Amino acid sequence: MEKIAVDVMGADFSPREEVLGAVEAVKEWNIPVVLVGDQNAILPILKETGNDRNPLIEVRHTTEVIGMDEHPARAFIKKPKASVALGASLVKEGLCGALVAPGSTGAAVTAGLFKIGRIPGVERPAILTPLPNEKGNTTYLIDSGASANPKVQTYLQNAMLGYAYAVKAAHIKHPKIGLLNIGAEHTKGSQLVTEAFELLSKQKTIPFAGNAEGRDVLTGAFDVIVTDGFTGNVVLKFGESTGHFFEVLLKETIEKGGAAAKIGALLLKSALKRYFLKRVDYAERGGAPLLGIQKGLVICHGASKAKAIKNAVRQAENICEADMTDMIINTMKELEDSYHLR
Amino acid sequence: MEKIAVDVMGADFSPREEVLGAVEAVKEWNIPVVLVGDQNAILPILKETGNDRNPLIEVRHTTEVIGMDEHPARAFIKKPKASVALGASLVKEGLCGALVAPGSTGAAVTAGLFKIGRIPGVERPAILTPLPNEKGNTTYLIDSGASANPKVQTYLQNAMLGYAYAVKAAHIKHPKIGLLNIGAEHTKGSQLVTEAFELLSKQKTIPFAGNAEGRDVLTGAFDVIVTDGFTGNVVLKFGESTGHFFEVLLKETIEKGGAAAKIGALLLKSALKRYFLKRVDYAERGGAPLLGIQKGLVICHGASKAKAIKNAVRQAENICEADMTDMIINTMKELEDSYHLR
Repeated sequence: MEKIAVDVMGADFSPREEVLGAVEAVKEWNIPVVLVGDQNAILPILKETGNDRNPLIEVRHTTEVIGMDEHPARAFIKKPKASVALGASLVKEGLCGALVAPGSTGAAVTAGLFKIGRIPGVERPAILTPLPNEKGNTTYLIDSGASANPKVQTYLQNAMLGYAYAVKAAHIKHPKIGLLNIGAEHTKGSQLVTEAFELLSKQKTIPFAGNAEGRDVLTGAFDVIVTDGFTGNVVLKFGESTGHFFEVLLKETIEKGGAAAKIGALLLKSALKRYFLKRVDYAERGGAPLLGIQKGLVICHGASKAKAIKNAVRQAENICEADMTDMIINTMKELEDSYHLR
Repeated sequence: MEKIAVDVMGADFSPREEVLGAVEAVKEWNIPVVLVGDQNAILPILKETGNDRNPLIEVRHTTEVIGMDEHPARAFIKKPKASVALGASLVKEGLCGALVAPGSTGAAVTAGLFKIGRIPGVERPAILTPLPNEKGNTTYLIDSGASANPKVQTYLQNAMLGYAYAVKAAHIKHPKIGLLNIGAEHTKGSQLVTEAFELLSKQKTIPFAGNAEGRDVLTGAFDVIVTDGFTGNVVLKFGESTGHFFEVLLKETIEKGGAAAKIGALLLKSALKRYFLKRVDYAERGGAPLLGIQKGLVICHGASKAKAIKNAVRQAENICEADMTDMIINTMKELEDSYHLR
């Protein structure tokens, strides 16, 4: 197995939750990790868990960090030894197979772009976010925030990257790939997305299943939902907030509902934790891979706890094993040769 | 009170639910209505409810209807006597103060644009959708689907229309108006939305509270969320689907959770209906007004039942009473004079 670099700095609960999560991934799946960050903060946590001499855990020391409120590109230039940059360098140099990066999404994308580097031909990398769906499996939203100014080709590229991930990493043989739009008919949508529909319909390399509306994201009718980074980011953040919204409403309902409601809620509680919350908890899925770069990079929520980091490390290892790069290059070549689509 | 025209054709449960909903609005609030549609279908329902001689209920007969699967503009030309066109004409001619239009959103927008007509200076009308928020009141999303190809000015115009509605119809004295974007900082977002941010920040006529992220839509931190019709429509449809998603998950949870979970759910059920569902049910709010036209038009969900129609009739009456037109014209004039923003 390839080593996974974990940036343990710069997120809400750094470095503690990152270190604990990485340790759990080592224990559960024997995945070797390199913890990138302040060794004076990391070593006590390793000691505490009895892992200070675990041969599967290395530490790469740095004290520089890019905060979530910093301008990513500017901070990146100012802090060449920032943990996220150092982690990406380990991947670039081949010492690690992938990087897990919690905290600033912008800093992670910048590190992916400028340290690990794009796959030749990919114009902009895209973030793929796994979402739970009604069928009990996963729908992948791409792009959920890497690039906010799409061109028509961006949609084709995102479809191609999502396709490669679905087949190689998620092992879906014939993924259903939909274009996020405001109507099911091909004439619907903004001019840009209507043109993207035409482009996707014309080519035959990537299987294209037509338009998906906002209401189709969670049904499981599509395996991959293709969109731009602006729309995708709005949908993702809105979706995350609905959980909290329903929680607030449920608490009020129990409050107002009297004794019956309170006893009912108590009786239901353990099942809710075991089944309901497990399904909607992003920590169960880990993070969101940045696709279109030469190696793996999994971006995690700034508020990630150990469980999310643990699962992100496994996701990162899975991306190493999937090795999508060849498929992406071949798919691009086929699109280019047959349809002059670049 | 002004009469409200109700298009009773062309939606999922037409004409029955439209007629029943209108009748309820008459009974509850004495709002006079004009039912537009096939009298041979309408009259038996009125008779059944003992309202065939109710002086507050008129019928305007037509059998032509624009279906939800038809191309709105084309159908509009082909069917000049379609119920939605006839209803809009009643409003245009001053016989009714506003139109309630369930079914095809495209047909309703077309009727608003070409029959009722824009307020001079408004480039494109916008759909305002009331959404429930965590604070227990309403956040208004504008535009939720009228125009999918925004220019920078579109955001300013939508902010202006949302502001007028918030003040005049929703009676919010100092509404907080946010711009839907992918970050809180002013540098974040697509080029278009970043420019819209600058434009909104520069003017001082409309109160502008800065960027709102997807996660801020349901918190109640903003009264009005300004966006384009593409993003707004995706958010709206996605939001509607989350209710169903959580319902599916809850059913599975109860199924898997054994006896305790089943009894718990039974005990909680009546409180859920009374408090939780009441808050998320769009039928409680009615429909989504089309703003920027000379008179009122409330667009309703194609699947509207009587309760939604009833509340939409009240909403329509409320819009008549609010009379936003002067405020919209004055606000536009002020923006134009002071900031040359047209």
